[in-house]
Amino acid sequence: MEERQEVGTVVRGRKTPDRAQSAAAGGPLPGPRATPGVIDAGAKLPRTQLLILQAARHRFALDGYTRASLRAIAADAGVDQRMIAHYFGSKQGLFLAAVGLPVHPAEVLREVLAGPRRAARQRIREVLTRVLAEPTIYERMVGVMRAAAGDPAIAPMMRDFLRNEVVAPLTRLLDAPDAALRITLVGSHFLGLVFARFIVAVEPLASAPPADVAALVAPTFERYLFGGVTASAGT
Amino acid sequence: MEERQEVGTVVRGRKTPDRAQSAAAGGPLPGPRATPGVIDAGAKLPRTQLLILQAARHRFALDGYTRASLRAIAADAGVDQRMIAHYFGSKQGLFLAAVGLPVHPAEVLREVLAGPRRAARQRIREVLTRVLAEPTIYERMVGVMRAAAGDPAIAPMMRDFLRNEVVAPLTRLLDAPDAALRITLVGSHFLGLVFARFIVAVEPLASAPPADVAALVAPTFERYLFGGVTASAGT
Repeated sequence: MEERQEVGTVVRGRKTPDRAQSAAAGGPLPGPRATPGVIDAGAKLPRTQLLILQAARHRFALDGYTRASLRAIAADAGVDQRMIAHYFGSKQGLFLAAVGLPVHPAEVLREVLAGPRRAARQRIREVLTRVLAEPTIYERMVGVMRAAAGDPAIAPMMRDFLRNEVVAPLTRLLDAPDAALRITLVGSHFLGLVFARFIVAVEPLASAPPADVAALVAPTFERYLFGGVTASAGT
Repeated sequence: MEERQEVGTVVRGRKTPDRAQSAAAGGPLPGPRATPGVIDAGAKLPRTQLLILQAARHRFALDGYTRASLRAIAADAGVDQRMIAHYFGSKQGLFLAAVGLPVHPAEVLREVLAGPRRAARQRIREVLTRVLAEPTIYERMVGVMRAAAGDPAIAPMMRDFLRNEVVAPLTRLLDAPDAALRITLVGSHFLGLVFARFIVAVEPLASAPPADVAALVAPTFERYLFGGVTASAGT
């Protein structure tokens, strides 16, 4: 399906033989991450983690993100609830691992905000280059978008999760008028890039080097995040 | 699945009772279109059109866009090939109707290009407002993206179609350095807006009035289409 010849990425660690298989087994590895803000994936998971992830996917699909309890997931998996904290840190971490979101949005935004405003575009370029070059984007973001597009149970869960765990905290981080709209505009463009590059794989965007795409898109993200405009004011 | 409460759109004509049902029957009506560049959909189709659309979907999925011949589609449908021209105008028109792309990209870009450069952003705002307010976007663009995300036969067909019938002619229309990359960047952002507004429906973007979204996004599209930057130059 994904027939991209040139992704401009360096695959770290072992190459996952099959994306669907990888997504089924999915989940980040605990331990140091190679790329800040990006969840590493790839190596084999302990059986306990796999059981937790299976139970979590089932519960999240059944109950939605908010109502699904860690207690119920642990019970379904037949493990102690402390194992969830051990392996995934938090409910958000578990959802990211179970559903497959390959980045920590708040960590990425913190990096963009950490520094002088005049250098924000450069920081956006850097972080976006890294994220677009990350093989987990290809393997997991696509899985999330496929699931949201194809499964009636996933889209509302994604919406619930994005509202509570991405848009709300990022809106507080940004601390600007229209912050929530700004965040979702950036998010929509990012989703579109993933869709065009990895799902439809339309050229020349599909094989454009991550650094080039980041250079073109960074001024847009900068304006959406920091620009003086509001929706009603236009321009 | 789409649980959007407020779409900010005015539904013209009869409300389609079921999107999937509508998509299955899909296809534009011949005759005058209410919104320039946007294909109208909704009313009942003559049986001949339905037969042609069914045959076309089958052939396009089987052979891909380029190899699927109008002769074979007409034969499969059991109709004279001239009926395809009569109802759909061209192979592109038939594909748009069969797969469901709800806009004529070249017509939209021509409108953006037809006028002084200094007013281009305003024209982009106007055309984008219209396209985002169009109920066919909700009903059909989402169908295309769902199909491309979910069906291994659709994504390569979409890629083939986009390359030959959207990116190539729009690139010639734009007549600029990096024109193809510029076109695909605009397209990726548009796909992302549709995904975020209509598939995941993440707020506040999902229910932001089309005119507000257009005002925020128009400067981005203007820069992607006309900006002085190239990918390698950055900025």
